[in-house]
Amino acid sequence: MTGTELYRDPTAPLDARVRDLLSRMTLREKAGQLNQRMYGWDAYRRTPGGFELTDALYAETERFAGLGALYGLQRADAWSGVDHDNGPGAEDGAALAELVQRHVVDAGRLGIPTLFVEEVPHGHMALDGTVLPVNLAVGATWDPRLYEAAAARAAAELRARGGHVALVSALDIARDPRWGRTEECFGEDPHLAARLTEALVRGMQGAGGSAGEDFAPDKAPVVLKHFAGQGATVGGRNSAESELGLRELHEIHLPAARAGVRAGAAAVMAAYNEVDGMPCSGNRALLTGLLRDDWGFDGLVMADGLAVDRLARITGDKVSAGALALNSGVDLSLWDEGFTHLETAVERGLVSEESLDAAVARVLRLKFRLGLFERPYTTSELPSPEAGRILSTDLARASVTLLRNPDGILPLAPRASRIAVIGPQAATVAHQLGDYTAPQRPGTGTSVLDALRRLAPPGTDIRHARGCALTGGDVSGIPEAIAAAVSADLAVLVLGGSSARTPETEFDANGAALAATDEMTCGEGADLAGLELGRAQHALLDAVVATGTPTAVVLIQGRPHVVPDTAAALLTAWYPGPWGGEAIAEVLLGLAEPTGRLPVSVPRSAAQLPVYYNHKDTEYGGYVDESAEPLYSFGHGLSYTSFAYGTPRLAGLDVEVDVTNTGQRSGRSVVQVYLRRLLTPTWPRTLELCAFEGVDLAPGERRTVRLSLDAGQLAPSRTVEIRVAASAREALGVRGQSLTAPEDTPR
Amino acid sequence: MTGTELYRDPTAPLDARVRDLLSRMTLREKAGQLNQRMYGWDAYRRTPGGFELTDALYAETERFAGLGALYGLQRADAWSGVDHDNGPGAEDGAALAELVQRHVVDAGRLGIPTLFVEEVPHGHMALDGTVLPVNLAVGATWDPRLYEAAAARAAAELRARGGHVALVSALDIARDPRWGRTEECFGEDPHLAARLTEALVRGMQGAGGSAGEDFAPDKAPVVLKHFAGQGATVGGRNSAESELGLRELHEIHLPAARAGVRAGAAAVMAAYNEVDGMPCSGNRALLTGLLRDDWGFDGLVMADGLAVDRLARITGDKVSAGALALNSGVDLSLWDEGFTHLETAVERGLVSEESLDAAVARVLRLKFRLGLFERPYTTSELPSPEAGRILSTDLARASVTLLRNPDGILPLAPRASRIAVIGPQAATVAHQLGDYTAPQRPGTGTSVLDALRRLAPPGTDIRHARGCALTGGDVSGIPEAIAAAVSADLAVLVLGGSSARTPETEFDANGAALAATDEMTCGEGADLAGLELGRAQHALLDAVVATGTPTAVVLIQGRPHVVPDTAAALLTAWYPGPWGGEAIAEVLLGLAEPTGRLPVSVPRSAAQLPVYYNHKDTEYGGYVDESAEPLYSFGHGLSYTSFAYGTPRLAGLDVEVDVTNTGQRSGRSVVQVYLRRLLTPTWPRTLELCAFEGVDLAPGERRTVRLSLDAGQLAPSRTVEIRVAASAREALGVRGQSLTAPEDTPR
Repeated sequence: MTGTELYRDPTAPLDARVRDLLSRMTLREKAGQLNQRMYGWDAYRRTPGGFELTDALYAETERFAGLGALYGLQRADAWSGVDHDNGPGAEDGAALAELVQRHVVDAGRLGIPTLFVEEVPHGHMALDGTVLPVNLAVGATWDPRLYEAAAARAAAELRARGGHVALVSALDIARDPRWGRTEECFGEDPHLAARLTEALVRGMQGAGGSAGEDFAPDKAPVVLKHFAGQGATVGGRNSAESELGLRELHEIHLPAARAGVRAGAAAVMAAYNEVDGMPCSGNRALLTGLLRDDWGFDGLVMADGLAVDRLARITGDKVSAGALALNSGVDLSLWDEGFTHLETAVERGLVSEESLDAAVARVLRLKFRLGLFERPYTTSELPSPEAGRILSTDLARASVTLLRNPDGILPLAPRASRIAVIGPQAATVAHQLGDYTAPQRPGTGTSVLDALRRLAPPGTDIRHARGCALTGGDVSGIPEAIAAAVSADLAVLVLGGSSARTPETEFDANGAALAATDEMTCGEGADLAGLELGRAQHALLDAVVATGTPTAVVLIQGRPHVVPDTAAALLTAWYPGPWGGEAIAEVLLGLAEPTGRLPVSVPRSAAQLPVYYNHKDTEYGGYVDESAEPLYSFGHGLSYTSFAYGTPRLAGLDVEVDVTNTGQRSGRSVVQVYLRRLLTPTWPRTLELCAFEGVDLAPGERRTVRLSLDAGQLAPSRTVEIRVAASAREALGVRGQSLTAPEDTPR
Repeated sequence: MTGTELYRDPTAPLDARVRDLLSRMTLREKAGQLNQRMYGWDAYRRTPGGFELTDALYAETERFAGLGALYGLQRADAWSGVDHDNGPGAEDGAALAELVQRHVVDAGRLGIPTLFVEEVPHGHMALDGTVLPVNLAVGATWDPRLYEAAAARAAAELRARGGHVALVSALDIARDPRWGRTEECFGEDPHLAARLTEALVRGMQGAGGSAGEDFAPDKAPVVLKHFAGQGATVGGRNSAESELGLRELHEIHLPAARAGVRAGAAAVMAAYNEVDGMPCSGNRALLTGLLRDDWGFDGLVMADGLAVDRLARITGDKVSAGALALNSGVDLSLWDEGFTHLETAVERGLVSEESLDAAVARVLRLKFRLGLFERPYTTSELPSPEAGRILSTDLARASVTLLRNPDGILPLAPRASRIAVIGPQAATVAHQLGDYTAPQRPGTGTSVLDALRRLAPPGTDIRHARGCALTGGDVSGIPEAIAAAVSADLAVLVLGGSSARTPETEFDANGAALAATDEMTCGEGADLAGLELGRAQHALLDAVVATGTPTAVVLIQGRPHVVPDTAAALLTAWYPGPWGGEAIAEVLLGLAEPTGRLPVSVPRSAAQLPVYYNHKDTEYGGYVDESAEPLYSFGHGLSYTSFAYGTPRLAGLDVEVDVTNTGQRSGRSVVQVYLRRLLTPTWPRTLELCAFEGVDLAPGERRTVRLSLDAGQLAPSRTVEIRVAASAREALGVRGQSLTAPEDTPR
């Protein structure tokens, strides 16, 4: 290599560089670019002075004549076995990436850099990565602008650590809360998810870098997960079958993907599940027909972990499984054996070299777009940890949702001088974080108890009792909790689930370790049949409420759990991240207003599922033994103040409505616009969210909110009705205004 | 009319008669033939001497210039208000039909007779009609031959009463037991349902009558209900949306319909629900594209009640709703306003006269096929009631399914000298019957208690305590039940649900009426969220089991309920019909062998749904808090004896297996053949039932059972594995044999 080849010329057109490089590659080198076979954490070993590369990495680059991509170089969790003792942190992540990249570039004949692909579901899943609230909490903010800023932050961290590509859950729609990955969804609604997916892509990828690069040095191409229909697997069972038809898929499960593709997402990940019989990784109609041909997507399609190999169940062996995936539209595999046999597949005629070239071109194209041939090592600075903490806390604060407060016991201050803080989620940070979170350094984050102690007015007497563990039936701590509640003016009972994969050790007041009975009840692979909290948590709730001390229940959870609605106030925070305790305490104390709105319906029981507001308009009357309606509606969320909406005004596709803060405190109203289809070719849903906007108002203030509808969402209906309300349930009762779609409305 | 028109000539070809008649009809007369607007029970009034016709009927024949069809002339139930005081019975049903028909033939210009369309879901739903076990019980027999005989009986009764067309549920597949109409399904499996649907069509329609008629005088054309996918509505919600894709529809929900069409079914009813956005009544792809074009169906398509009018939700008005339905493939409406405007629809150009003619031709064709122009009145004799009772009891007996008997406490005789018969289903017939059942004459039928008293060995001391009602939480009767159990050697606890629409009055030992707290928990419109029995029934079960007296629980139910598996034995009978108590008692006492097998999986809880054996092969590991597997498997059912299967032998598409009765009693083994797809283009199910055969064996007897596979079911897989077992769960564990489909296998 002389360094004068066309593909090395940064001034040459991108396509020409790709073509030139492809023309120089052997079949083996090409196949190598499509594999992402090894675990990144197996590529290095910590040494006293830093890191050294492993034989496994040498073997891998030898085997693939380079390295197409490396997954999870900086991933830290129980599975990778990477923690603060052996893994890269903020100070040396970039150096490790450079060490590996230097080897890859040198080892390959053509000097093709690798792609570092990292998990960034709610912040970079690496040591010292800033942890953000989970997606379900992001959904509860109804605030794409705030999320865009947080996504930008995560991308900047990733790139400063030497990472390139961010794997982010965004496309899964939460249709069954039994699913453990509900926490990774923006909610049950396709429009809300689409707006947040756009924000994600804008925030992470930006508008393009300088010097002809598509991504600025602090911006990261996003792999949108998962394409498609993963939120619709039967029974909420992870990666099980989805029986959905095409209309349901298009109306509910594809809008977020389409919005992400339109926003310029660099890649999507094919989902594990099948859709009506065809697994996504082998689904040409989906990956090529829809995604590339219909939508014009020209980015990369990555497979989910070992999803290509799974295709051998129907093809009979892994060679043909790899061929099926590639022919269907998968470009880059993850851990599979199937793609390691692509040379064989080409030799056997199962895959054409043209198809292989097209996939390789997409991988190379992304590397060129990232500028990796010119600058294979990171050049950007890590943003300040403090700014990350502030953004994460802002998101958490915006997500806290007040569901019930009939007696006005919240906000707590300054009425309560003695507060009992009770429950297994009260004094812990580990269970606030959600799945796909790296181990935190001791002392990171704030529990609800910590924050209440710090933020409550001076002189407030705060007592704590854990009461019980998150799971199991041990009720031995309940008497202590009762005693704490009895002696308090108010009780704050912090309950919930957990996606922590390593049980956190809890300590009693004397520092003795308590039995670690907190088991993972949420997250990937942790689906629940019943939606109740653990038996002990229910007993604790009953016991505390029975004391007669006014009780505010706080739920920290990755899915809507079913909790008896017996307490005086109810607030949910989803998994709010490390500083979620602070955000919750601020809302409890009235230092911040509750501004979250439900991104999912809260069911009355698992027996009532499915429960979502945008079901078809069949006017179902309910079960003999239970309503078919949720306990709390999508879009619901109370304020400490009150709002009045004027009569909406329609002008073309714009809706204007006057919103007045009619209460005594500042607050945020999330104006929600729903459409109801009237003349329409297929059976319509009761309501569909079609626009929303949060507006902050001082007491007495009135503002006119203008929202624009998307003509594409109105199609293919001829006539719809527009309703403005503060929740889906409220929208059922308000008067709508008829709107006839423009004749030339595009589909 | 001179009587010499071609259409009146019975020797003329059927199509020529139809064309001739059509050519003589006005648009109004044509439209009239497609309506079935009035309720049959509004057509007559009882008089001291018999019946008289009502002004409503006169107005209807005037309005429609004839009468296309009349629904439910003999329907008796709470809704129609018809009972033994005012309705037609066995002795005068035919006379009433003749009275109406005489009017219709005389009133119309062309003398076109009407079609009497009657509900015959499990026997003719008329006074004195022989009530059969519900479909779910029929499914539990796994005995198409027996069901064919019962269907023939029902058709003979219908025709002898002057009825013509039988509405029969057959096509709905039970995929969610929350659905109240689960009882109307043959079960969860498409192959079992297809075999029983064929038997239904053969039994009711026969092989054609003499003298050129398509139906013998004791045979009735069947309307197969419902087409399609009604068993797959979300949440088990009646007539709600089904989100299914086409493959799922074809694999699970269409095979029974296809089998029925192949067997020659005269008609199908379009279902209420939508399938992936298109309501069946407005679904041209389904009613015309699939049913007529692909399958070659040339019969009638009837709408479900008011289903056409529902289409106005998307078309804007009922005229266009009627047009959409007709253009989609509906020929005959039921109660709708929409089809009364068909003339207007033609005038507005919404419907072509050709389309209208095609629908009218199908209605006329069925009338000609029935010979109604020649013999408009019934000519056949009512078969003997005694024969009906025997057939119904045979079906009931064959459906009784023993689920659990680890200690061998069943059969009861001759070990028990003191038996306590307890529970709200023990001494009642009304709750054994199921939905769509006419009122029974007092004294009809046999309860479990009655039958045990009659059949138990002389000297057996049988005590009864009701314990509680079917629904509600009144536990005041439990102490009496405990006392009965304590003083007995064995307790028989008869629990269950009810589809009775009028609460039966229960009486205490002194003849005083007890509070009627038995509410309908099953049947059309009675969906449940939770699958538990009433609180009081659970308390009763706990109390009786706690006495320590060995207890056999008997469930009489229309869906699988969730019952704690704490008793020593468990037996389910579904709704076994009026004489079900006799069948159950015979099995309990060992006078008959338990031969039923589960046609549905029994779930552990509603939170675990969906639960069926033929889910996709995703090897799902289960929920954190619950298995994903059922409590009892599809196909499961114990005997009082035991069987051994030899190694199956495959020869082409035939499977042979030796079955030996290895126990001490006679019994019936239901040999089940499952296939597991290996090389196959789409994602396969874990197992699929593909053949079954019941074999009766004396102790020690061995028989070779030969079963033939259907090449059509193997397609489109290239390689499958064949497994022979006694239940789906057992089939998971047995060794399979590979079978490669013949090259020319048709799809």
